[in-house]
Amino acid sequence: MSRIVYVNGDYVPEDEAKVSIFDRGFLMADGVYEVTSVLGGKLIDFDGHAKRLERSLTELDMAMPMSADDLLAIHRELVAKNGIDEGMIYLQVTRGAPGDRDFAFPPEDTPLTVVLFTHNKPGLADSPVAKQGIKVISIEDIRWGRRDIKTVQLLYPSMGKMMAKKAGVDDAWMVEDGAVTEGTSNNAYIVKNGTIITRQLSTDILHGITRAAVLRFAAEAQMKVEERPFTIEEAQNADEAFITSASTFVMPVVEVDGATVGTGRPGPVAARLREIYLEESRNAAI
Amino acid sequence: MSRIVYVNGDYVPEDEAKVSIFDRGFLMADGVYEVTSVLGGKLIDFDGHAKRLERSLTELDMAMPMSADDLLAIHRELVAKNGIDEGMIYLQVTRGAPGDRDFAFPPEDTPLTVVLFTHNKPGLADSPVAKQGIKVISIEDIRWGRRDIKTVQLLYPSMGKMMAKKAGVDDAWMVEDGAVTEGTSNNAYIVKNGTIITRQLSTDILHGITRAAVLRFAAEAQMKVEERPFTIEEAQNADEAFITSASTFVMPVVEVDGATVGTGRPGPVAARLREIYLEESRNAAI
Repeated sequence: MSRIVYVNGDYVPEDEAKVSIFDRGFLMADGVYEVTSVLGGKLIDFDGHAKRLERSLTELDMAMPMSADDLLAIHRELVAKNGIDEGMIYLQVTRGAPGDRDFAFPPEDTPLTVVLFTHNKPGLADSPVAKQGIKVISIEDIRWGRRDIKTVQLLYPSMGKMMAKKAGVDDAWMVEDGAVTEGTSNNAYIVKNGTIITRQLSTDILHGITRAAVLRFAAEAQMKVEERPFTIEEAQNADEAFITSASTFVMPVVEVDGATVGTGRPGPVAARLREIYLEESRNAAI
Repeated sequence: MSRIVYVNGDYVPEDEAKVSIFDRGFLMADGVYEVTSVLGGKLIDFDGHAKRLERSLTELDMAMPMSADDLLAIHRELVAKNGIDEGMIYLQVTRGAPGDRDFAFPPEDTPLTVVLFTHNKPGLADSPVAKQGIKVISIEDIRWGRRDIKTVQLLYPSMGKMMAKKAGVDDAWMVEDGAVTEGTSNNAYIVKNGTIITRQLSTDILHGITRAAVLRFAAEAQMKVEERPFTIEEAQNADEAFITSASTFVMPVVEVDGATVGTGRPGPVAARLREIYLEESRNAAI
């Protein structure tokens, strides 16, 4: 079945969804994105994603192309038109398509490009992978310095995903100056002696919307959280490890660079956090 | 006048030139590019650009989408169709438009996206700016670690261009670990006591096609060349400074971070190199 996607005001079949070759997203990676999950046909943490979108745009001297309410309406329309019960909505905003290619930004009245499409993922929440856990390798983090801005400069994370695939594992954790920054499209955590350890926010990592929610739920559940960098060795010697992202929620990690983490099975902290996150998110979904 | 551009096998008016929203160039900056200059209706150093294109693609596990001869034919067709006497041809290749967004690379038989368009720039070689020189500021180099691959991840160079604009100057030189890497879309040079100094090739900088030609011509003209990193302070105290790129050829730099370089006027080495480069390039143009 062909999806209906949103492109600059129009709802069109996916194979007719196009942008100009002069779009700055295509020519210069001059754009940002968000991925919002859908559970039970409702949006998970839409407000968080809308706020981060605005922050990313502001950091790049772009304005919101429309109000958060209007964006919400498009998300809902796409959920309805494509009959999404579980899945994701991808949203991308670029600095538009001026008439020509130029390193200098185009005039401020150049309309931004706004594209949204759905991913239908039945069974997303009840993932069998979450019951097994995933395996990761470490790779050097050579991305640009502003990873807090959610730009479409995803070539290296994409290459990292392929390095993981070639190594026969599921994902790669990126390492800079000896410490883990994050996964290719997720935040990274370890658990040691009951304490959840994850890198503190800075320009080094994405300010995960799921990360913020999970840390809030962890605090509410009286779990100890330490925000600081950790090494691959620490991860290998941890009791548990896991990742969070909008589309994987809380996903246990059971192997790091070939070393089994803990028992090699998803641990109780990750499992509990996943349960709480999914329950609370479903309740708050809009 | 509307340009005729090339998109995946078709010559189309520029306002009809579009790519899928699922193109990996648009979604993930998963693409590379080249810019080849045109003088007297002929292509400057086409072979160099075709070879670098192949290298960029190879580094990213992509193959040439067609032979260099076929690419040459498209370049020539665009020059003819758009009546270009002086200007540039922009070429971009991306990993194509699979049916959906995924960090993992699409199947290898996914056709690459190939886009080319012209820039008509009458008077490009006889630029009045080259007689005045340009001014630059320095900014921190926070780009990813593989700048030797000519990817479309140009957001930061684009931001750098805007920082330069805001500072009332023409361009920005990027600095890493205390030394200049390169300009936003050009290689950087200084001249001290008759010696031309420019950073050595590595993954830190683009392997400029114009850079290679200029260094070859400099050697042929018995000029001394030292390939090593240099600092902003050295640049400010140099006798001359300049940049090279496919579209600016050899362009004198007369001010660095507010400090006048040499006499504040284009120096003899840069002027001579520009003259040789233009003459030799015109002779070898195809």
